Amino acid sequence: MSIDRANLEAISGMTSAHPILETVRRAAEVIPALGERRLLHAGPPIEWERMSGPLRGAVIGAALLEGWASDAGAAEQMAAAGEIAFEPCHQHAAVGPMAGVISPSMAVYVVSNAAGEGTAYSTLNEGYGKVLRYGAYAPEVLDKLRWMNDEMAPLLAAALESEEGGIDLRALIAEALHMGDEGHNRNKAGSLLFLKQLAPRIARVATGRALEERTLAFLGDNALSVLNPVMAACKVMADRAHGVEGSTLVTAMARNGTDFGIRVSGLGDTWFTAPAATPHGLYFPGFSAADANPDIGDSTITETVGIGAFAMAAAPAIVSFISGTPRDALDSTLEMYEITSAEHPHFTIPALDFRGTPVGIDLRKVVELGVTPRVNTGIAHREAGVGQVGAGLVRPPVELFEAALLAYADRYNL
Amino acid sequence: MSIDRANLEAISGMTSAHPILETVRRAAEVIPALGERRLLHAGPPIEWERMSGPLRGAVIGAALLEGWASDAGAAEQMAAAGEIAFEPCHQHAAVGPMAGVISPSMAVYVVSNAAGEGTAYSTLNEGYGKVLRYGAYAPEVLDKLRWMNDEMAPLLAAALESEEGGIDLRALIAEALHMGDEGHNRNKAGSLLFLKQLAPRIARVATGRALEERTLAFLGDNALSVLNPVMAACKVMADRAHGVEGSTLVTAMARNGTDFGIRVSGLGDTWFTAPAATPHGLYFPGFSAADANPDIGDSTITETVGIGAFAMAAAPAIVSFISGTPRDALDSTLEMYEITSAEHPHFTIPALDFRGTPVGIDLRKVVELGVTPRVNTGIAHREAGVGQVGAGLVRPPVELFEAALLAYADRYNL
Repeated sequence: MSIDRANLEAISGMTSAHPILETVRRAAEVIPALGERRLLHAGPPIEWERMSGPLRGAVIGAALLEGWASDAGAAEQMAAAGEIAFEPCHQHAAVGPMAGVISPSMAVYVVSNAAGEGTAYSTLNEGYGKVLRYGAYAPEVLDKLRWMNDEMAPLLAAALESEEGGIDLRALIAEALHMGDEGHNRNKAGSLLFLKQLAPRIARVATGRALEERTLAFLGDNALSVLNPVMAACKVMADRAHGVEGSTLVTAMARNGTDFGIRVSGLGDTWFTAPAATPHGLYFPGFSAADANPDIGDSTITETVGIGAFAMAAAPAIVSFISGTPRDALDSTLEMYEITSAEHPHFTIPALDFRGTPVGIDLRKVVELGVTPRVNTGIAHREAGVGQVGAGLVRPPVELFEAALLAYADRYNL
Repeated sequence: MSIDRANLEAISGMTSAHPILETVRRAAEVIPALGERRLLHAGPPIEWERMSGPLRGAVIGAALLEGWASDAGAAEQMAAAGEIAFEPCHQHAAVGPMAGVISPSMAVYVVSNAAGEGTAYSTLNEGYGKVLRYGAYAPEVLDKLRWMNDEMAPLLAAALESEEGGIDLRALIAEALHMGDEGHNRNKAGSLLFLKQLAPRIARVATGRALEERTLAFLGDNALSVLNPVMAACKVMADRAHGVEGSTLVTAMARNGTDFGIRVSGLGDTWFTAPAATPHGLYFPGFSAADANPDIGDSTITETVGIGAFAMAAAPAIVSFISGTPRDALDSTLEMYEITSAEHPHFTIPALDFRGTPVGIDLRKVVELGVTPRVNTGIAHREAGVGQVGAGLVRPPVELFEAALLAYADRYNL
């Protein structure tokens, strides 16, 4: 089979997947790897010694949340002593924003593919301020997580399992792109569409008024509420493109705060990694680039399937958050057509006359043109326990793609 | 005072008004004119004999709703015999979409100006399909209105009167323009922002689960839920520009289905009217331009204060509903800068580098350039009782503006 035909098959798998949000479950119930003292994290594999501040912070927070350690020092000692095992979310059908840590007791969204095989998981979004995904682990961070996992999650599960069936995330993303979202850093519209579908169901199944009110306010006031289910939907789509013999399509891009890693459809489960860059962007008051951690998180799964920075022409208002001008937003999308294989049949951009978003990053084109994928991202403080300091733009190092293309040539005897 | 200075004062009143949705009340409680057998309607004044089909249909429906008549024939006879009095919404601090009929027992939103004087009213939006505002009056239309007025309205009133205070409609409109709305025909984002603010309050004050669930679904599933409070907000803004001696600013544009009427800031309460045109647009399956009623409704209050068709560059996705291309949407806004006096300080368009929307239609510029205001609109069937048949674009006749300018010259001895 020719490379182009292999890529066509991979793209077809990616764009025909139809992710539906089915329910919410405890991570340990649905992700078998999450047994004794094992955590999942964002990005390619990494050991404690090489972890950046925000990932270490999230690991500490998860160890405290699970009761494995009684304070931060004890948690660090455990991790340093090898008493906690670490594996990438991506290797267990999961994705997590920023640090992306998933521990056994956390609630996860369950997203499945209505058009065939495939299920993926992601945690519930914590909102803004001091949050675990940015490496914060103060008592109030853990209190909020406990409320989310123990109280909000069962309510969401009951609402999602009501008779209407799950929530169609492909339709939700498509509509949100017509409402000024790009689906990665800007999920304002998507989060409201999510709330709209959940609110009447929540009213039907809620058993306590205070929980109901807090849940509706929590989901509504967090413009990233839908980011995590959207990421799981993207993971479902990306995984349908993975493992096609001969395909040069990129099926994962992910960062652990130290390394940027990619996987390629026709190259099995190998990660190609290089040092993660530091994003360029806008900083919150009191912070600057000196505070920034290198790029972190699995949320690049959005760009991998043709939204996020690839759909930025749909979201001109985003520039007030991540820097640049509306023209830059347009250019971001236009440039990504150069390195992709197709235009998305479901995700379209009104301002480009409803053209489909650029989708399916072709390793060959990235290397040939020297144009790397654009990524929108949040920026974490480089120290554990602080949190988000800004938002901006970043690109993976071109070396990753060069190394992958060499491996491809080797594997396929080209 | 020079005309320019007068217009500056009028524009300042319009753009500095700060409309807040305070509560919901029975129309008769807050609009003193709504006593015995009197109805308010959209557009300039009109008698029963000259009313178009959809306005007659809404009058019939209102007479049935109020119990003034037992069937449609009796209602028509009453109206024809002069037993029902008619006055424009606009003359009673109110606005209504399409037929715009307000009867005493209907619930109305109460919107007041946090930056000074001014209060305006609008009914609750009925959603799609067979609805009174499009002239339908079948039993299910009236049943839904009764539910809205008797059950949903008290719940909304309680939610709005909770301790957080009212809902800031100026902020809501500004945000919705960054989410692909133009605030007239497209209110998807605004309606979800409205739901987001109401949902937790509703959860707090609801006394029955079924009513709560139905209300959250009704508000969330209707992408025009927020149109009526937005129109009342626009009325508050427009009225702050009215009555400035010497000003040539247009402060009302409204249609009753037969005539298009305008009022001008410096020309008191006089209506200048001319026959309403029929909109150009897209028709629902089974309908064509032959079914269309001439332009109808007070919703042109949105264009009057710088949103709607004036902000269409913010809403490229709208063209799939009202016809045209995203480029036309951009051009619509750009053209309106030619006939307006200012750029809105609060309502901005990301795709135009966050330029303020064109606001404050200057009678002089309209006549000098021969460029009339653009209007986005729904299209009603020309017969009573049918409903909406499409959506599109329309402009008021230039004669209106010429007549008003002549009257201005006469009034100010120019």
